[in-house]
Amino acid sequence: MIEVNPNAPLGVFDSGVGGLTVVRALMDVLPGESIIYLGDTARVPYGSKSPETIRKFAVEDTQFLLSKGVKAVVVACNTATAHAMPVLQSMFRLPIIGVLEPGVEATLADPHCQRVGIIGTAGTIKSCAYQHALAMKRPDLQIYAEATPLLVPLIEEDWIDHPATKMIVKEYLKPMLDRGMDTLVLGCTHYPLLKPLLVKILNNKVRLVDSAVVCAEHVKRLLTEQELLRTAKGKPKLELYLTDLSEQFETLAKRFLRADFGRVQRVSL
Amino acid sequence: MIEVNPNAPLGVFDSGVGGLTVVRALMDVLPGESIIYLGDTARVPYGSKSPETIRKFAVEDTQFLLSKGVKAVVVACNTATAHAMPVLQSMFRLPIIGVLEPGVEATLADPHCQRVGIIGTAGTIKSCAYQHALAMKRPDLQIYAEATPLLVPLIEEDWIDHPATKMIVKEYLKPMLDRGMDTLVLGCTHYPLLKPLLVKILNNKVRLVDSAVVCAEHVKRLLTEQELLRTAKGKPKLELYLTDLSEQFETLAKRFLRADFGRVQRVSL
Repeated sequence: MIEVNPNAPLGVFDSGVGGLTVVRALMDVLPGESIIYLGDTARVPYGSKSPETIRKFAVEDTQFLLSKGVKAVVVACNTATAHAMPVLQSMFRLPIIGVLEPGVEATLADPHCQRVGIIGTAGTIKSCAYQHALAMKRPDLQIYAEATPLLVPLIEEDWIDHPATKMIVKEYLKPMLDRGMDTLVLGCTHYPLLKPLLVKILNNKVRLVDSAVVCAEHVKRLLTEQELLRTAKGKPKLELYLTDLSEQFETLAKRFLRADFGRVQRVSL
Repeated sequence: MIEVNPNAPLGVFDSGVGGLTVVRALMDVLPGESIIYLGDTARVPYGSKSPETIRKFAVEDTQFLLSKGVKAVVVACNTATAHAMPVLQSMFRLPIIGVLEPGVEATLADPHCQRVGIIGTAGTIKSCAYQHALAMKRPDLQIYAEATPLLVPLIEEDWIDHPATKMIVKEYLKPMLDRGMDTLVLGCTHYPLLKPLLVKILNNKVRLVDSAVVCAEHVKRLLTEQELLRTAKGKPKLELYLTDLSEQFETLAKRFLRADFGRVQRVSL
């Protein structure tokens, strides 16, 4: 690792605005840290694209954050984590943290879980990254994975409370419910916005795992261990960069972040 | 205009594979022409992105086709047509044909139409390009426009025959049906795949306008007028380039094109 300035900001990126659920959790767990967020809204979604393209985009996103002088990079996108972590960690010499490992950790925190369902984008599910990581740590686990590619568009269009969304979610979950799933991993940083609907459909009988909070705790532990916590006085900053700006993204960003933020800046990668 | 070789291929681009409905129509109307198709699948969809970003992408798409030596460019994407035609026509000195003008022409071909509904992506509808072009030619027309942003994801996920798609389409069309729409413009090159469902929902009472065929006839007329029809002997070629390759895109491409094609090539823009 190279010499890193603890007072530099944390960098966070996602394909779109879903990764702001992770920023929200980081702000709660690490209120003293400055954060630079990049959402690649010009090329969203990543989840339906090929591993090669996802890796190329993830490298470009990381390079942008590095150009802003960040001290660590949080990959707040399950698809990018699933496909690009090895290449990012070999290319860049600073701490890079994905959402997958914390999600697995949170899933296994309950030793009684036996039948785990995972939902995510086609890219995340096809990578088998969650399935593999869970199976390595708990070979006895029953694992069911379902690609749920329509959920990101439905969330981004704000159809969260629509009957069609309920119908689609029910259909996606049915095969896993039929097999007695006791835990459901939300393998996409957009999905926390569907929690109220999921709780209703699952009737409180299935534990929901949202990796955002666990990921933030993971980042806190890592910064503490590596003595990288910010020590500077003065209010920490939050800077948002998007590769495409639209009213829709700004509205959604507010919903994901549950906080006000300054002007969003548009960047080209 | 610069000197153009009539035996050069036609260039066609779209944000994804929807534009292949136009290629299908071109192959039917101009069976002697070679075609080079570019689908920007790495950055699909365009319809939810800002005008500035759409224009940037459209310029890059056109530059790629020019590097392949095409004699004319067909913009087989309503969103790109709506936002980028002026910039493309001012930047590039070869014939550039969009899908909007032919769509308008086809709509007004029936002089009895009075209440026209338009469906398209958020980008296309917000641009008011169809609304403006129709109103300029028929100021007495009642025009209703609805952004239907979930249809592209539903089609790309091949949920065409699903009850949720039916529910969503019905909801999108209801306000226009309530107002007595007699003609519905499919303002997106993906939508022809929904025709069977639309016919069922509209109960044959509403005329459907699909610009693909009219666009192809428009291209034929233009090539004839400018003496640009291919004269070379030998079988014409069809070359497909996508900025992201996946099985899903290849399956969909076959469905859109209703023909076999050779190896699809991946390109970076």
